[in-house]
Amino acid sequence: MSFDRLQEKIDALQNPTVVGFDPSLEHIPPQILEHHIAEKELPLEAAAAAVFEWGIGLIEAIYDIVPAIKPQMAYYEMLGPEGIMALKMTCDYARTRGMYVILDGKRNDIGTTAEAYSAAYLGTVKIGAEEVRPFEADALTVNAYLGSDGIRPFIDMAIKNDKAIFALVRTSNPSAVELQDRRVRGAGRDSGTFTAPRSGNSTAATSQTISDPSSRFYTVVGDLIEGISRETIGEYGFTRVGAVVGATYPEETAFLRARLKNTFFLVPGYGAQGGTAADVAHAFDEHKRGAIVNSSRAIIAAWKKDGANYIDAARAAALTMRDELWHALGLRA
Amino acid sequence: MSFDRLQEKIDALQNPTVVGFDPSLEHIPPQILEHHIAEKELPLEAAAAAVFEWGIGLIEAIYDIVPAIKPQMAYYEMLGPEGIMALKMTCDYARTRGMYVILDGKRNDIGTTAEAYSAAYLGTVKIGAEEVRPFEADALTVNAYLGSDGIRPFIDMAIKNDKAIFALVRTSNPSAVELQDRRVRGAGRDSGTFTAPRSGNSTAATSQTISDPSSRFYTVVGDLIEGISRETIGEYGFTRVGAVVGATYPEETAFLRARLKNTFFLVPGYGAQGGTAADVAHAFDEHKRGAIVNSSRAIIAAWKKDGANYIDAARAAALTMRDELWHALGLRA
Repeated sequence: MSFDRLQEKIDALQNPTVVGFDPSLEHIPPQILEHHIAEKELPLEAAAAAVFEWGIGLIEAIYDIVPAIKPQMAYYEMLGPEGIMALKMTCDYARTRGMYVILDGKRNDIGTTAEAYSAAYLGTVKIGAEEVRPFEADALTVNAYLGSDGIRPFIDMAIKNDKAIFALVRTSNPSAVELQDRRVRGAGRDSGTFTAPRSGNSTAATSQTISDPSSRFYTVVGDLIEGISRETIGEYGFTRVGAVVGATYPEETAFLRARLKNTFFLVPGYGAQGGTAADVAHAFDEHKRGAIVNSSRAIIAAWKKDGANYIDAARAAALTMRDELWHALGLRA
Repeated sequence: MSFDRLQEKIDALQNPTVVGFDPSLEHIPPQILEHHIAEKELPLEAAAAAVFEWGIGLIEAIYDIVPAIKPQMAYYEMLGPEGIMALKMTCDYARTRGMYVILDGKRNDIGTTAEAYSAAYLGTVKIGAEEVRPFEADALTVNAYLGSDGIRPFIDMAIKNDKAIFALVRTSNPSAVELQDRRVRGAGRDSGTFTAPRSGNSTAATSQTISDPSSRFYTVVGDLIEGISRETIGEYGFTRVGAVVGATYPEETAFLRARLKNTFFLVPGYGAQGGTAADVAHAFDEHKRGAIVNSSRAIIAAWKKDGANYIDAARAAALTMRDELWHALGLRA
């Protein structure tokens, strides 16, 4: 089962980190970009070649200490079809190095269109007599706003190909509250067992009060995705439908961890967005499992801060993050 | 302003239709696909070439009677980087024929990542000394679940390049109700003026009752997108942030039309999904403006039903749809 594979990689490296590949061109060392601009005729070709070279260097820097990468599709799409080719080759290379690849595309649609997205990134396409793989990732992020019609086709494809998805539940951005935190009528009645963690001012965690997280819209989304994926629970107790749960809201993280016991969490917001190791510790279960924490800029753009070459800087930053998580999770004295 | 351009094309052709390009390979006439499979070495190249040829034929069939196309990105992504190149060339070709291109990608993210998506499809990217356009569409569909952080970067890019976006508000699929119809506490208090249209059993449209649409989550989303885009209102009264509002829920459509007076609607669900011309008529304002109705399979796969070549079959089906909408909107006797 797909999150079993991820959990085993995490356990083997004792490191629940995923490195976000966000190749905004400002994060690519200028000499790499300039070299390809001088060599290639078309700017998009040059930029895509630079982004690919950069990604290979990053993979070589971290593959023996970090279990997974999360390429952010937007930055590759921004470079046109050439960028998409760089994305495909980056995923393939990471997998040859044994890394688990989470494509961050937040795709969403229904019916045959959702099937097409899942075939693109998690499956195969039949063309004439041949069955081909357009891209190969281990997991894909999705947006659940369309309801279960928009999730089931991805689950079916994940089962067929030993893959997984992560649905957005509670994101790490400030305006997440505008929609995701709306209180839903008729939700939250079964919330008696939740106690807010480590919070000095949280005396309001009784049912149906304003701060009751079980009445929040994101909880409805979380319940939906765990509910429709129960048949896919693997060896470590997690379904094939994980949840994106931002590090920047630790109380919500703890609440969702307690509620969605069978859901693996992908946790953005660590570092640059303000989430600390203590914050993200709430995403893990009592066995220190069931979550992976993303860091992008703090690792991939570390070269800007310490002046080293980007490969050494990324490796050093990845080791620092691993040690911070180790410490926060009590995995090492 | 971008929806002004679309409204003018609609007015000129007297046809508020957009044809959805959903090139699932089963919709491509077999002889086109077989020809390219015989010619090309790689299956994905062959399929992408077939999809491109098919799209050119469709554009030629309809460009003088239909103002817009809506390529569904999933089906192009399903064919790998080659498919994405076919998508890019299809968009470019449609624009040379004067068509308005709505890319249906339902993209969503925050901050610089949302900027990257908007640069990819609605803007430009700076590479070294050059400013290039990765793709060129007139509008892009987006998913608003991340809140205003996830919409503003698209609005900024739309303003800069005279483009537009459509945010998912109320989709046309059966499970849309699971999340989008949830009743939100604290919403709906200003709903006194709504009266449900043409509905025999709708005596409950008073504030805060179960059937009050103003307390629904999709209404909160609709209010959010209209609220943050007011500064972009154009000549016909519409902002640059349209809404996807499914044809399969006509009462909700009428309610949203009355409430979101400055929001242009993209209406899926016509035909194959069950929406009728009378249903979609609710999406238009009193001037018969402010909406465009999508049809995909009924037009692009018409050749399967009537046995004609796909170009003639698509044109005939598009003319039928135009006449149905004309009649339902009372635009012609």
